[in-house]
Amino acid sequence: MEDIHNDDVIGRARVKDTPELEAYYKELEGLGAGALWTVANDIEPWEPRSSSVPMLWEYDNLRELVLKSSELVTPEQAGRRVVYLVNDKRKDVSAAVGWLYTGIQVTRPGESTSAHRHKASALRFIMEGEGGYTVVDGNKVTFEVNDFVITPNSAWHEHGVAENGKTCIWQDGLDIPLVNALEANDYAVFDGKQPLTAPANYLPLTYSGAGLVPQDANWDKPYSPLFKYAWKDVYPALLEAAKVNEGSPYDGIIMQYSNPLTGGHVMQTMGASIQLLRAGEHTKAHKHTGSFVYQCAKGKGYSIINGKRFDWKERDIFCVPSWAWHEHVNLSETEDACLFSFNDLPVIEKLGLYQEKEYPENNGHQVL
Amino acid sequence: MEDIHNDDVIGRARVKDTPELEAYYKELEGLGAGALWTVANDIEPWEPRSSSVPMLWEYDNLRELVLKSSELVTPEQAGRRVVYLVNDKRKDVSAAVGWLYTGIQVTRPGESTSAHRHKASALRFIMEGEGGYTVVDGNKVTFEVNDFVITPNSAWHEHGVAENGKTCIWQDGLDIPLVNALEANDYAVFDGKQPLTAPANYLPLTYSGAGLVPQDANWDKPYSPLFKYAWKDVYPALLEAAKVNEGSPYDGIIMQYSNPLTGGHVMQTMGASIQLLRAGEHTKAHKHTGSFVYQCAKGKGYSIINGKRFDWKERDIFCVPSWAWHEHVNLSETEDACLFSFNDLPVIEKLGLYQEKEYPENNGHQVL
Amino acid sequence: MEDIHNDDVIGRARVKDTPELEAYYKELEGLGAGALWTVANDIEPWEPRSSSVPMLWEYDNLRELVLKSSELVTPEQAGRRVVYLVNDKRKDVSAAVGWLYTGIQVTRPGESTSAHRHKASALRFIMEGEGGYTVVDGNKVTFEVNDFVITPNSAWHEHGVAENGKTCIWQDGLDIPLVNALEANDYAVFDGKQPLTAPANYLPLTYSGAGLVPQDANWDKPYSPLFKYAWKDVYPALLEAAKVNEGSPYDGIIMQYSNPLTGGHVMQTMGASIQLLRAGEHTKAHKHTGSFVYQCAKGKGYSIINGKRFDWKERDIFCVPSWAWHEHVNLSETEDACLFSFNDLPVIEKLGLYQEKEYPENNGHQVL
Amino acid sequence: MEDIHNDDVIGRARVKDTPELEAYYKELEGLGAGALWTVANDIEPWEPRSSSVPMLWEYDNLRELVLKSSELVTPEQAGRRVVYLVNDKRKDVSAAVGWLYTGIQVTRPGESTSAHRHKASALRFIMEGEGGYTVVDGNKVTFEVNDFVITPNSAWHEHGVAENGKTCIWQDGLDIPLVNALEANDYAVFDGKQPLTAPANYLPLTYSGAGLVPQDANWDKPYSPLFKYAWKDVYPALLEAAKVNEGSPYDGIIMQYSNPLTGGHVMQTMGASIQLLRAGEHTKAHKHTGSFVYQCAKGKGYSIINGKRFDWKERDIFCVPSWAWHEHVNLSETEDACLFSFNDLPVIEKLGLYQEKEYPENNGHQVL
Repeated sequence: MEDIHNDDVIGRARVKDTPELEAYYKELEGLGAGALWTVANDIEPWEPRSSSVPMLWEYDNLRELVLKSSELVTPEQAGRRVVYLVNDKRKDVSAAVGWLYTGIQVTRPGESTSAHRHKASALRFIMEGEGGYTVVDGNKVTFEVNDFVITPNSAWHEHGVAENGKTCIWQDGLDIPLVNALEANDYAVFDGKQPLTAPANYLPLTYSGAGLVPQDANWDKPYSPLFKYAWKDVYPALLEAAKVNEGSPYDGIIMQYSNPLTGGHVMQTMGASIQLLRAGEHTKAHKHTGSFVYQCAKGKGYSIINGKRFDWKERDIFCVPSWAWHEHVNLSETEDACLFSFNDLPVIEKLGLYQEKEYPENNGHQVL
Repeated sequence: MEDIHNDDVIGRARVKDTPELEAYYKELEGLGAGALWTVANDIEPWEPRSSSVPMLWEYDNLRELVLKSSELVTPEQAGRRVVYLVNDKRKDVSAAVGWLYTGIQVTRPGESTSAHRHKASALRFIMEGEGGYTVVDGNKVTFEVNDFVITPNSAWHEHGVAENGKTCIWQDGLDIPLVNALEANDYAVFDGKQPLTAPANYLPLTYSGAGLVPQDANWDKPYSPLFKYAWKDVYPALLEAAKVNEGSPYDGIIMQYSNPLTGGHVMQTMGASIQLLRAGEHTKAHKHTGSFVYQCAKGKGYSIINGKRFDWKERDIFCVPSWAWHEHVNLSETEDACLFSFNDLPVIEKLGLYQEKEYPENNGHQVL
Repeated sequence: MEDIHNDDVIGRARVKDTPELEAYYKELEGLGAGALWTVANDIEPWEPRSSSVPMLWEYDNLRELVLKSSELVTPEQAGRRVVYLVNDKRKDVSAAVGWLYTGIQVTRPGESTSAHRHKASALRFIMEGEGGYTVVDGNKVTFEVNDFVITPNSAWHEHGVAENGKTCIWQDGLDIPLVNALEANDYAVFDGKQPLTAPANYLPLTYSGAGLVPQDANWDKPYSPLFKYAWKDVYPALLEAAKVNEGSPYDGIIMQYSNPLTGGHVMQTMGASIQLLRAGEHTKAHKHTGSFVYQCAKGKGYSIINGKRFDWKERDIFCVPSWAWHEHVNLSETEDACLFSFNDLPVIEKLGLYQEKEYPENNGHQVL
Repeated sequence: MEDIHNDDVIGRARVKDTPELEAYYKELEGLGAGALWTVANDIEPWEPRSSSVPMLWEYDNLRELVLKSSELVTPEQAGRRVVYLVNDKRKDVSAAVGWLYTGIQVTRPGESTSAHRHKASALRFIMEGEGGYTVVDGNKVTFEVNDFVITPNSAWHEHGVAENGKTCIWQDGLDIPLVNALEANDYAVFDGKQPLTAPANYLPLTYSGAGLVPQDANWDKPYSPLFKYAWKDVYPALLEAAKVNEGSPYDGIIMQYSNPLTGGHVMQTMGASIQLLRAGEHTKAHKHTGSFVYQCAKGKGYSIINGKRFDWKERDIFCVPSWAWHEHVNLSETEDACLFSFNDLPVIEKLGLYQEKEYPENNGHQVL
């Protein structure tokens, strides 16, 4: 269902080539210039246009290869031992969708990486394992499956798994392609191990109450002090909200992970959400600007993206490009399903570029 | 321990009366004027000066009289059936301390009040009972002992207790004296009962996760959407924070009730906090601007305020005036103690009037 | 035209005294308590209620006495040589209206004061003279008639007039009564003269372009960096705006002095405006919360305040209390008239207490 | 002077190819995946990296061709009659530098365009002519040489030149490449001519006073209400500031065009500045993130960009890519020189991506 626009109207470029004009264009080209009307209709599209395609990566296929990487290279050799997922149309920028990078990282018990930092921001969603931890700017945070953890831009960070833990696998999300495109990325290696500046889980435990902030908080960073959003708290909150909310027609019960000191996104360039599709729920389709990477955290179902069905179950990862129609279906009639997702909405919103559109036909459902 | 200041210095008024000056003053008075130097030193004090005195109201004394009010008058006759607590030096403005009002309200099972609203803001801290509820702008919120509930300025509100509940007693806190002093208060009576606009506890259940906000939230009010801060969530959060925080030297583990969408105070004119004094804890003394009303929510201990000891136990209420030295002591060596308090800090902070000072002697402790 | 309200309705206190109740009230009083319903209707008025009365101070009457002060006392003896204007109903707090103080200060050529500071904020509007200056936090600012100058809270400040200048008279406006009421004022004397930290008029010259800010500005103060709003720029801006604006029905062409870095009020507790009444203009009446002190900067006319006419001409000062009906009239059919005013709107607005009401009868005009 | 970084350290990818790994990579590729360590060092550069090159476009060369376009095509055929300037390394996205587009538009007396709008923002700096105007969201704004005019995102806009005017030439700046890259651009054609909603120049005249805002302003747009920054006001402000400011070591006296209601950038995605280089001034070199397009508004001189000299005089246009060393020189010993520039700093700053570095050698000057 693509909107049809006609360029043969006033306000669009409608100049036909002539020998004189072609000579003129050549002359301009020699001066590092061009005639706008030769490119105007192309660079001023009627509607948002994405260069990414919808894709789904099945965890069943990837898991073995991810684990195999831990036999092939050490974290030290690799910097990070990660299998990254790349959009068929964004290979040039190593992006999964739009300007977002995602990868699957594996760490074995007893392993830990060295610390580094970069202007790009990072986040993790935990897929498997026990005893995993991250250290961000001197704060050690332990995590479990389905926890959501952030590594804001320019924060030193390193990860590891306790000796007595179990192999941990998690999804990384970064805005490396965006920060590279904006010509602002950098990189630094920490000299040695980061010293811990607080007891383990200091920040999550200090900010663990909804609507409670330490009276002497003097947090002046442009990102959330809540470095971990634990599934043991998040999932019950979804269930509580589901008792009294109808939810979004497009997304069911959907919560944005937020900075408790601002109510806004957790970091400056990437946001993240968790949504619960109730048993049997089939949402309506809409499209909006912003790029999204999803991971199924619970249950099974499918999403229809630009008219194509993508089936998912726990741990599968898929993407929705900017301005792509999408709707979600929970295939179970008895269990809820949960989708984690991260996005570039902070960028889109701060720059005034957000817009959305409801699917106008067929009672809001795409036809397969 | 009062700081000593000398007015006989350059920069202070030091004019001595003469017959000529007295005649001059008389002339000015006739024109609705005066000579600044006759009042300057008085209206420009060296340090903040409060007209309130520290006071403590024992619940054991008050409880019976509060209950008796429910025999003497109906809510309908009284508008609100409340015993209010008044500072010995603020009787003219019906304030408990500074410009803050507090009272104790009682409602019997099956009773409910009519709805009204005012520019003054209100809050409640629940002391006794079961089955109590408030309806604020169409949102019904049920509450239990030690829950903290807000009624922001100009919101319609009414309260009641379910037929099968138990007599409820709660503390009201309002900024009526302040809003009257600022010549901005008003009052309106709702015509009939407020219609409910959402399921019961819609807002508390929707905002119950730390760092989670509904993605489609479009809350545009200048106060917290979290109308209730439930003790069942607040007390565990204090315990979690106590695991990893040393706490404030003056207040132990202290959390500010906050608007999850801003990290700021719950309302525009009044803030509130909950603090936990660990077993045996004796904090240091400091003083700061802002007026405070406390209620002991758990345990027993005492506070030293401007050199005088005030012993408190569960449900006792006391106040700390602006710029009064104060320190707190938990008398139990095994149990923690909790103090709820509300204040006018939003006013003091927004107007740039906050300052504090540590007690400089005797290792930070006042001498009784 | 006062709105009539009836307290004999549900939602208001309507308890009649009985011997039993009187005994009860006595018992409460002994415990530092009272029954809310005995004071409720008084402390919860139906509409905002001011304790100030409208007043006008004629400069013709005051000028001689102001100048005489310079013969009677030295600035050094007096601290500040000021005649202050006091509302008949606010003598207890030395306020001209509400919680605002105003006075008229005189400084002779060659005189200068010592520096001091206080939590109260100050502002000046220049009435007469040449060669006057103020030094605020190390910034010297020279001023001329009708210039508006600010001295924000806790900034060191001192004033003077150059040896070769002419006696300067200006109006001071301060929020001393408010900051005292909020129990937060303080005072300190600078030890010696303030060293200048920048060339004279550094801040006004640096911020002199509308919509231009120094790219390396790192101003982190909660008040305007534009310490002076010069009449030579302000009056032309009024004329420019008058070309294309109808203006406010209540105030003609009215501009708020603003912080160019925020668009908000110049200081945290006091705002100020300048308004132009076109030849023959007679505005409509309205009332709103907030207290106002006016000075006529140009022309002549009158204002009707709560039904009473107050005639003013250049340099006269008058006040409009909170919630008082007021309208303004320019008596000239050929010349415009300008009114400077300052107010406590930053307080009223930040605390959510602003409301206004249009005069509903007689086509918006009060009947004298 | 490029910083040297070594990838053969811990924290960087240092995996050597083996047959086993190559097979592994192939397997990953088949699943839409890859091994991060094969691209990590490339996508995580040590320092910001720009794909643009410094360039200068001489107006002497371009002017004739620009005028010629007005003989070759009509505005109606062309949509916009513009010669755009394109960076040698950014031809694929039609950008002059980074993600910024710039072009030179010509309009003859009596000509006017139809109205359109897009999510991309636009700005203009006037180069030649008389009687030009723009209409933005119903506001007609007339302009003169060196005026700076904005067309915020999604505002309807059209331009023209009065019948009795002179051919106008101006520089357009747009963020079309950025908004396309973010997959969020759109386009719409206005049906007919925009009706004017206010007198001509309503907004510039209303906001023409520094530190003065209309008291009844209810501007809720995320961009400046000051649609025009007139050279007749801007240049004097630079001269005033120059009296009391040393200026930036890198830029002389530099002012950011700002939104008078926020002190921030004029629009959400593009900022602009005007700078004055005093007679003989030679600034020091620095580099920072963000892309810049300059136009010389007055005088003559040169800039050294990444070690290469670019001479400019009035109307010449040049660019400085992100993270390129640059310093500026005014070649006149008697006259000042002025450079207008626009940039993507709002993007860089809001996303937390700004950083800068002083040229560390040779007393801050690059060696040619």
